[in-house]
Amino acid sequence: MPPLRIGMLGLGTVGAGTWRVLTRNQRDIVARSGRPMEIVAVAVRDLERARRIVGGAVALTTDPFDLVNRADIDVVVEVMGGTTLARELVLQAIANGKHVVTANKALLAEHGAEIFAAAEARGVIVAYEAAVAVSIPIIKALREGLVANRIAWVAGIVNGTSNFILTEMGSKGIGYANALKDAQDQGFAEADPRFDVEGTDAAHKLCLLAANAFGTQVPFAEVHTEGITELEAVDLACAEALGYRIKLLGVARRHDHSVEVRVHPALLRSDHLLAGVDGSMNAVMVHGDASGTTLYYGAGAGSEQTASAVIADLVDVARSAACDPSERVPHRAFQSHAMADLPLRPMADTTSAWYLRIICSATPTAERALLRTLARFGLQARIYGRYAQPDHSAHHVVLTQPVAYAALRRALVSLEQLPAVQGKVRAVRVETLE
Amino acid sequence: MPPLRIGMLGLGTVGAGTWRVLTRNQRDIVARSGRPMEIVAVAVRDLERARRIVGGAVALTTDPFDLVNRADIDVVVEVMGGTTLARELVLQAIANGKHVVTANKALLAEHGAEIFAAAEARGVIVAYEAAVAVSIPIIKALREGLVANRIAWVAGIVNGTSNFILTEMGSKGIGYANALKDAQDQGFAEADPRFDVEGTDAAHKLCLLAANAFGTQVPFAEVHTEGITELEAVDLACAEALGYRIKLLGVARRHDHSVEVRVHPALLRSDHLLAGVDGSMNAVMVHGDASGTTLYYGAGAGSEQTASAVIADLVDVARSAACDPSERVPHRAFQSHAMADLPLRPMADTTSAWYLRIICSATPTAERALLRTLARFGLQARIYGRYAQPDHSAHHVVLTQPVAYAALRRALVSLEQLPAVQGKVRAVRVETLE
Repeated sequence: MPPLRIGMLGLGTVGAGTWRVLTRNQRDIVARSGRPMEIVAVAVRDLERARRIVGGAVALTTDPFDLVNRADIDVVVEVMGGTTLARELVLQAIANGKHVVTANKALLAEHGAEIFAAAEARGVIVAYEAAVAVSIPIIKALREGLVANRIAWVAGIVNGTSNFILTEMGSKGIGYANALKDAQDQGFAEADPRFDVEGTDAAHKLCLLAANAFGTQVPFAEVHTEGITELEAVDLACAEALGYRIKLLGVARRHDHSVEVRVHPALLRSDHLLAGVDGSMNAVMVHGDASGTTLYYGAGAGSEQTASAVIADLVDVARSAACDPSERVPHRAFQSHAMADLPLRPMADTTSAWYLRIICSATPTAERALLRTLARFGLQARIYGRYAQPDHSAHHVVLTQPVAYAALRRALVSLEQLPAVQGKVRAVRVETLE
Repeated sequence: MPPLRIGMLGLGTVGAGTWRVLTRNQRDIVARSGRPMEIVAVAVRDLERARRIVGGAVALTTDPFDLVNRADIDVVVEVMGGTTLARELVLQAIANGKHVVTANKALLAEHGAEIFAAAEARGVIVAYEAAVAVSIPIIKALREGLVANRIAWVAGIVNGTSNFILTEMGSKGIGYANALKDAQDQGFAEADPRFDVEGTDAAHKLCLLAANAFGTQVPFAEVHTEGITELEAVDLACAEALGYRIKLLGVARRHDHSVEVRVHPALLRSDHLLAGVDGSMNAVMVHGDASGTTLYYGAGAGSEQTASAVIADLVDVARSAACDPSERVPHRAFQSHAMADLPLRPMADTTSAWYLRIICSATPTAERALLRTLARFGLQARIYGRYAQPDHSAHHVVLTQPVAYAALRRALVSLEQLPAVQGKVRAVRVETLE
């Protein structure tokens, strides 16, 4: 078979990793796929650096449009990132009849509908296994492995940076700022970490998971997203004392006429499999009506870890390029005509149990007032721990029964108005995911 | 597209589950696959029972050869089990140009080479996702998701019955016989449980995993297989006290000129993800050179859980039936001409750390003799616990550094000859799997 001819946009961490793995494992990859792969051309900013990586046999250009317009490539690998130029280039590649493999979750979460529609109209493939939990073949599991199932929910830890920071906070008892600095020092967080620690990156990935799980468009801009920046060491310690761990979770759930899609920190019981996912690792759980719960675990970032997924996509492209498009796996698991456009469930209507940490006078009267206030909003709750402060107040740790978010918010307002309560109440969801 | 026409051999737990899921989720499955599926005919022993399950529209026969010879089916689903009649029927179906989907690990572990060769010669697909860790798409992950990797090892908990029994023994502190009875009462073990508890079933599955991971034939009959029948409650308790759990593991490792494939109980650190896989659940870990370690978790048995995998295979067959065979995913991950025939590494040469439980006089002299005997065979070891017995002896729990199995066995013979040592030494491997 003739080689699959690849043009690559970008030669950063992921691009260089893809080059390295393709070169190192070429023999095994051909033994598996039956078809050689050749990186024909690469578009980069720094030609000299690129030349040192790929040697002399690969065409280099600083003009990415030049690359996507080349006649001698079958597939464009987009590993440059960003959503503006990358969008234009991907659409141009599609218009030129090239297949596309991308690791760009932001691009697909924000412009997926447009890009997939263009690809279908042109009869080409846009593959994106590397965009979610890199080395874990979770897109393939959702689209193919679990194809028989009506999927009730998908949830997971899909941002390695946040998980690394929370693991540091929990294991070392340090605060967010120190843990972030550790993460930055060790290369697990960017200098500007907002994209990761505020939940945006996790929300991008969750949108792709939810679309594939439920066969519906998921409007990224409307997804409820909370990050980890307001968690304190005391919260992780209180959770631990009660038998929980705090993780940044993405949770997507199918309802009859809506989908619930949310990213936020949450308490999970310490013996829950997701609670044992530490450091920069990722894991995704999927609940199907026939399969029951399955879980997928692996690296959430890294050069060769991402390359593993990029190359898996390239092999899939090589295999199905010649197929009739109707026989290919659809871009978002469901045939495009069967994709729904379910609304997002308003957050006010979503239900969770809650962990509350309330700084309050440690007197029976004050505590009765706390619980009475919660009860007034329908929150069945119990005080599980009191951690004394020097000034005779205490952190009161309360766990509630599941309650609608709207009720919880109203209860918080009232709680914070109680004379015995100091400052803001810290509220974190408790998830069971069973 | 015309429906994929299915003939089914067997309508037991898995067959009935497949019928139920296909019927219940038909709309979603078609929305995903783009192609309807129709069970045209079923071969069963009990026609009346079958008629109650599938209703009037499906042809029923008691002659399974009649089924595989029907002209109006595209694919045969073999869910009858066994290796003699099932082998003949699968080969006949292949000879008739039918694709085959099977959940039969024994059949493929023992006759896979013959069956896959016949399928390739005839240009048909034999799919078997349901044969390993049913609902978990692990065959797909190995063959497709991790296609870029040179896989160093694959290991896991792939027998739900044994895992259920070990979980019961550990959590309730009961012995093997009582735990087995619990498992039988709750439907997690057969009346004759040998196939599961002696490791045979796990070895079947591990052979399939190893073949797909390494691209080599794995001769099932030569695989080292130990079951869980000799473990005692005291071993699980001692392991727990040292921070370990005992699991029945399958471990397959690639060496330069051989493969190591073995099934046996093993200690895993309690914080290892596999140690948290409880009850009848399964999990498989794979270490690839690019991906790093990934893990796949889910149900190891069950009617609809198995059906989930059978139907995923049916959709794959529907998609790639029209493709040129060279574009299909190879049966064992590697193109057949690229499959190796590596020898199994002799067990004597395999290396593990060991847990030893030695009943021995609890005197300094006796303990010195123990450690001296171990040292004589190159075993660096430490006594980690002493659990007194009524007669002044004690269970001595020893952990060793990694050592070749041959040396361990010689050391055990000498240990058991020491005057202070009573009876047999219990020896269980300690695995790190990192």
